[in-house]
Formats: sequence, C-alpha cells, structure tokens
Amino acid sequence: MQPVGHTKWAIAEGYIPAYSNGPEPQFTSHETVCILNAGDADAHVEITIFYSDKEPVGPYKETVPARRTKHIRFNNLKDPEPIPLDTDFASVIESDVPIVVQHTRLDSRQAENALLSTIAYASN
Amino acid sequence: MQPVGHTKWAIAEGYIPAYSNGPEPQFTSHETVCILNAGDADAHVEITIFYSDKEPVGPYKETVPARRTKHIRFNNLKDPEPIPLDTDFASVIESDVPIVVQHTRLDSRQAENALLSTIAYASN
Amino acid sequence: MQPVGHTKWAIAEGYIPAYSNGPEPQFTSHETVCILNAGDADAHVEITIFYSDKEPVGPYKETVPARRTKHIRFNNLKDPEPIPLDTDFASVIESDVPIVVQHTRLDSRQAENALLSTIAYASN
Amino acid sequence: MQPVGHTKWAIAEGYIPAYSNGPEPQFTSHETVCILNAGDADAHVEITIFYSDKEPVGPYKETVPARRTKHIRFNNLKDPEPIPLDTDFASVIESDVPIVVQHTRLDSRQAENALLSTIAYASN
Repeated sequence: MQPVGHTKWAIAEGYIPAYSNGPEPQFTSHETVCILNAGDADAHVEITIFYSDKEPVGPYKETVPARRTKHIRFNNLKDPEPIPLDTDFASVIESDVPIVVQHTRLDSRQAENALLSTIAYASN
Repeated sequence: MQPVGHTKWAIAEGYIPAYSNGPEPQFTSHETVCILNAGDADAHVEITIFYSDKEPVGPYKETVPARRTKHIRFNNLKDPEPIPLDTDFASVIESDVPIVVQHTRLDSRQAENALLSTIAYASN
Repeated sequence: MQPVGHTKWAIAEGYIPAYSNGPEPQFTSHETVCILNAGDADAHVEITIFYSDKEPVGPYKETVPARRTKHIRFNNLKDPEPIPLDTDFASVIESDVPIVVQHTRLDSRQAENALLSTIAYASN
Repeated sequence: MQPVGHTKWAIAEGYIPAYSNGPEPQFTSHETVCILNAGDADAHVEITIFYSDKEPVGPYKETVPARRTKHIRFNNLKDPEPIPLDTDFASVIESDVPIVVQHTRLDSRQAENALLSTIAYASN
C-alpha cells in the first residue's frame, strides 16, 4: 500500500495517572500513542517529551515495521528515562516515512475506567 | 447534496475488548467505524486491517449507499476473517467516492461503560 | 474578531441513547453539536440528518448570532421532525459564514455517565 | 526544535461541571486547554471566551515558555473574570508563535469520572 500520513505529529495532552484498578495489563492506567505505518518501508520514529518545568527529553526511538501498527504506552518508555507519573507532558513524534498517529488514555484510577482518544496534530 | 469528505482515511487505534457487561447488542463492547456518504453515488468501501505482528488482512468490502450513513462494528467484519479480540490493530478505509469517517469505541468490560471517539485521519 | 472556521462540516457518528440516569437536564443522555461563530455576522446554519435506511431529513435551521456559541442537542431538534432515539445517524452542518463545529455525547444510560467528543470534519 | 503548529485555534465545546467527587485537585471536574510550544521562542497566548448569551470576554493572557507545555484549566482563569460553572462556552486561542492545542475534560460529578479529549480546530 502507498504510505499514508505525515512525518511529524504532535500531542499537546499527556498525563499518566499515578495508580490503577483492575487486572493488569489491560486495566493499568495508561497513555498510548498509536502509530500506523501502512507503507512498505520501516518507520524509524523518534518521540520527544515536553514538560511544563524542564527541558524536553528524548528522543525515544521506536521502529514501526512496514505494514504494521504499534501501540506504544508512554508508561513503557525507558530510554533515556521513564516519564514521571501524575505529571503534565506533551509529545512530538517524528518519522522518516509517513505514519498516522492517534492518542488514547485509559484511566482506571477509580472502580470504573474512563477513556479518551483523539487524532494527533499532523504538522506540515 | 455534493459529496463531502475524502476517499482515503486511516485510524491508528483499534482494539476490541474481550468481554462485556450489560444488555446486548447496545452494551456489547465494540469498536465502530462510522461512515457518511452524503453524495448521490453509492460508495464502495474497502477496509484493510493492520496488526502489530502479521501482514495486513483485507480488503473487507462494504457498500454505503448514496445519501446514507453506515456505522460498522469491527466486531462484525467476517470476510476474509474476523478480527481477534484483545488485540491491537489499525485500519485504512478507501472509497471510490468522498466519504467522512469517524472512530468510536464503547468499552463495557466493567459495570459502567466508557466511550471514546475521534475523527479519523483524512489522507490527501 | 475575524471569522474562524469553515462553512461546511460533517459528523459521521450520531446516536441518541434511549434512556438516561441522573438529574435532568444535565444528565439526560444527549448528543450535541457545538457551534462557535467568532465573527461579526450572524451565522444561518442548516443541519441535514443522514440515516442508514432512509432519505436524509432537513434542513433543520438554527441561527448562531455574531460572537456567540450555541451548543445544540440533537435531542431538541423538532422541525421538520424529531430524530428517533437508539438509531444511527450522521449530520452535515452548513453555514453562510465560517463557524467551528465540535461533537459531544453524554451517555447516562448506566449509573455513571460516559463522555466522548471530537472536532467535526471540516470540508473544503 | 522547529516550531510546530498554528497560531490560531478554536474549541467550540466548553463546559465546567458545577461539582465534583474525589480527591482534589486531580479529581476536581475540570476543562483543560493543553498547549504545546515546541519552538525556541516563548509563546504569548491570548484566550477569548465566547458565550451563548453575552459578548465575548478576554483576552486571558498566558505565556507558554519555549520548549514547554502548559495545561491550563479554564477553572483557573481569573483575569478579567472567572468563567461561570454549569455554563456553555467556547474559546479561541491565539499565539504569536506556532503552538499545538488540545481540549480535555474530566467530569467527576458522579462517583466515577468520565473523560473526553480532542485536538482543537487549527485555523489557517
């Protein structure tokens, strides 16, 4: 398939709740960046995390193989450093080939989970 | 009415919860692609499903008649094969005439349902 | 302020739950189209409703005055006819001046409410 | 990093629930505008609030420093005046440098919270 999407995306909202309810890992509170690489070349993706009170951290490097999707939990980013819980952040996602990016959160701090999702901002 | 929309769309997030609570079919956990064909020609739509660990599957073929909307549950796609539950996926939606695509999930795994929705990514 | 937005928008998702829990009118299950008219001329808005199994109905006519927002519940549209409950629909929103359109649902069928929202599709 | 985004954004939906459940401040019902300034110059941001029945109020002035994100609760805007609770509003966000804007609500009026989020409308 022809590649679909843009090579630079941004998500202004980011927040990993500090605790969870329910069976893991499905009900662990999480903030996810969903990436689709519909094209025939692997996507080398770099994620930069922005904070309210300190310099950006990154890049976090991920590969999304050709014709694959990868749903990455911000909770699981480790290198160069984990993202602190209960802290506002934002992210910029850059790729060497076009990708599509969507942002989802599952918040299970209370007995019943809550969900949000939005297409990310596609930069020109 | 003049046709509205694009002919190629993408949804990077996809996940059908493995179980549900509440009366069926309204409260069955579901992942939906909502398609609007505002124009005067039938839309022949092809959906391709992308996974994290295997080649894409499809096309799943759907017709959205002229001046109609169709809200398709990914749960109900059968041909060429059903989408497995509790599995990350993404989708590309292609049509021979302009359509508008929106993505919605109702998650009823817990006693109280949760909802998410977003406009899909409109490809140029 | 200069006008902001587009003159034609579409929302592919639409569904008014058939029942509700909690105090009215805040917790009545509702599907809302939020319109912002930031400019200095009144917006004459026409909403057309699309169904899965019958011809479109409309236009429903609304005026959003200059420099005002109007959050219209689809539940409250009466002329030419109410939108049936528990029925899939979609909508196209047209205006004579630029507006911004966002779609929100509050679903209170269960004891705890659920929310979704997305920017609508801005047509060129 | 190069600046990302647009200099004018709009959010047609706005509503601060009148009450809350759960520990403050995380579970206080809130309506948030999340702003990312990825570039190397501070962003001087002006927010104008639109109502259904009176003239717009503003600008509310905020600075988002270079390479920072700021998640602003509409609840906390004070100057020129607080936004009333349980009231429909909308907003236009203007900046002197490109920013990215996302809208999120946490509604904790009931025992279990509900979430919504969407990218804002990027004006040309």
